[in-house]
Amino acid sequence: MNDLKQKLISLVENDLQDIEAALDQNLNPHVEMVRETAGHLIFSGGKRIRPLLNMLCARLCGYTDEFIKKFSTIIEFLHTATLLHDDVVDDAAIRRGKPVAHTIWGAPVTVLVGDFLLARALHIAAETENPKIIKVIAEITESMCQGEIIQLIKKGDIRLTEAEYMDVIQRKTGFLIQGACQTGAILAGAPIDIEKKLSEYGYHIGIVFQIADDLLDYTSDTKELGKTIGTDLKEGKLTLPIIHTLEKADAKDRVWMEKIITGKNFTDNEFKKLIQLMHDTGGIRYCRKIAENHVRDAKKIIASFPQSKTTETLLLIADYTLNRNA
Amino acid sequence: MNDLKQKLISLVENDLQDIEAALDQNLNPHVEMVRETAGHLIFSGGKRIRPLLNMLCARLCGYTDEFIKKFSTIIEFLHTATLLHDDVVDDAAIRRGKPVAHTIWGAPVTVLVGDFLLARALHIAAETENPKIIKVIAEITESMCQGEIIQLIKKGDIRLTEAEYMDVIQRKTGFLIQGACQTGAILAGAPIDIEKKLSEYGYHIGIVFQIADDLLDYTSDTKELGKTIGTDLKEGKLTLPIIHTLEKADAKDRVWMEKIITGKNFTDNEFKKLIQLMHDTGGIRYCRKIAENHVRDAKKIIASFPQSKTTETLLLIADYTLNRNA
Repeated sequence: MNDLKQKLISLVENDLQDIEAALDQNLNPHVEMVRETAGHLIFSGGKRIRPLLNMLCARLCGYTDEFIKKFSTIIEFLHTATLLHDDVVDDAAIRRGKPVAHTIWGAPVTVLVGDFLLARALHIAAETENPKIIKVIAEITESMCQGEIIQLIKKGDIRLTEAEYMDVIQRKTGFLIQGACQTGAILAGAPIDIEKKLSEYGYHIGIVFQIADDLLDYTSDTKELGKTIGTDLKEGKLTLPIIHTLEKADAKDRVWMEKIITGKNFTDNEFKKLIQLMHDTGGIRYCRKIAENHVRDAKKIIASFPQSKTTETLLLIADYTLNRNA
Repeated sequence: MNDLKQKLISLVENDLQDIEAALDQNLNPHVEMVRETAGHLIFSGGKRIRPLLNMLCARLCGYTDEFIKKFSTIIEFLHTATLLHDDVVDDAAIRRGKPVAHTIWGAPVTVLVGDFLLARALHIAAETENPKIIKVIAEITESMCQGEIIQLIKKGDIRLTEAEYMDVIQRKTGFLIQGACQTGAILAGAPIDIEKKLSEYGYHIGIVFQIADDLLDYTSDTKELGKTIGTDLKEGKLTLPIIHTLEKADAKDRVWMEKIITGKNFTDNEFKKLIQLMHDTGGIRYCRKIAENHVRDAKKIIASFPQSKTTETLLLIADYTLNRNA
């Protein structure tokens, strides 16, 4: 465990316990198999960054009601629903070091349990009776599906541009993290300028989160990451490190990379060579630089609030989002 | 086209046109492929019974706002979302006489487009800013997924009881039709007793609708139905005609039936023999009787309203729901 993570956990230990308890209490399935299938992924050691951001942003705006615990499950249930469907869509094998749900319960049950979680999230949102919150949650859901669809359509397309990549990551990852922060503020009844600030903080964190994720697929190792590294490339998912390296590589390397990408198969040595190329062309550095800029912007926003344990935590989350091992 | 259908269409021709136009206008995908995939099923000649019930119930309660057109798409989008996922789950081949979406665009895109439609439906519901409506829509969605999951778990289980069957059909079909009627009343701001009456009308129609569907799988022919008859049985779905026949058949016939059901494969002659058995044991008659009782109860509710073109249509829908060819 790195220092940032340790420090962060010491700050949010109680919140994380509350989140775990709330997830368990609010799943409420009519059918036991739903609890089992959904629970397999929900309780497999997720980082809970999303519900945590939701809680912290509400707290920063002065919200003290216990309902935030239940509310924060909306964000994690939505996230889990998309993971369940993604794993079916990508035909993934492991996630968080465990076999994915559809290899145990089959794709049909997994698709339906994902649907249940989407519905459950929107049901809890409806309980707030706050139209603005409900709209934000519904829009996030709509956007996430479309982000996934665009990603699927563009799979293996070596012409994918950086702008298209940014559009996809914002839809599939960014909006949910942004929405977690924004709905925390709305729930707290924060004034619109504060809501906008926290929404913007979430926007930056969302981008950092996905770029860091995409980097980990080339810079981590399988054991630490809890899933096979190089998976994105095997699935034909072109992420920023690859996009930038393709742009900067010379003609010969580019042809070689295109062969690797479209072939969707490579030896360990070829993968190592690819990573070397990412370093040589500055692809890795470029991604980190972009992410660092967003970390800086995120922290600037939080620095504009009066200092507190909550602002300290939100600043730390910005750093941790980029500098994590998994 | 039978007489009932012809009469019904003459009464609701304009409404059906409005529904078609609203479905097209409110799909609003960001990605063109979503329109194509969703549209393939949405515009493949669905009966539009659900949005129609929604419109008619709102009108019966005095609602005249144009927004009902958009609102009614919620019901059809939810319905289409579940059909898309069902066809993936059941690995179906044809629906409404056309190849199903996942055989054209693949299961991944189909799952994600289904998700989009769920989200789109809930987004339009959120636009009403009416917490009660949003809750009903979210509950329906939750219930439908769970109905599908129970059905999936119980596939091929010859011990399925009539009570379990009724629970499944209410969840997967009933609640949506009931909700279509109820939300029509809520949108119109109807008093609670009127809302309850129309919800109950929808409850009866929902049961009739599913029992009629289940009967058609044994009494129609493939061309008329737009999908292969005997499909339920091939998929291991035990419906009321089978459940009742299993209960009434003598030991020898029962053993033969169990073999057919668990084997999931049968010749045309075996299927004919099975249908004969359903007639001989009174299985078909029993199902029709139950459905007729619900038609009667549904009509009794509508008869309590002052007579109008709208009540005439709702009465006709009750009869048509049971006596249709597809």
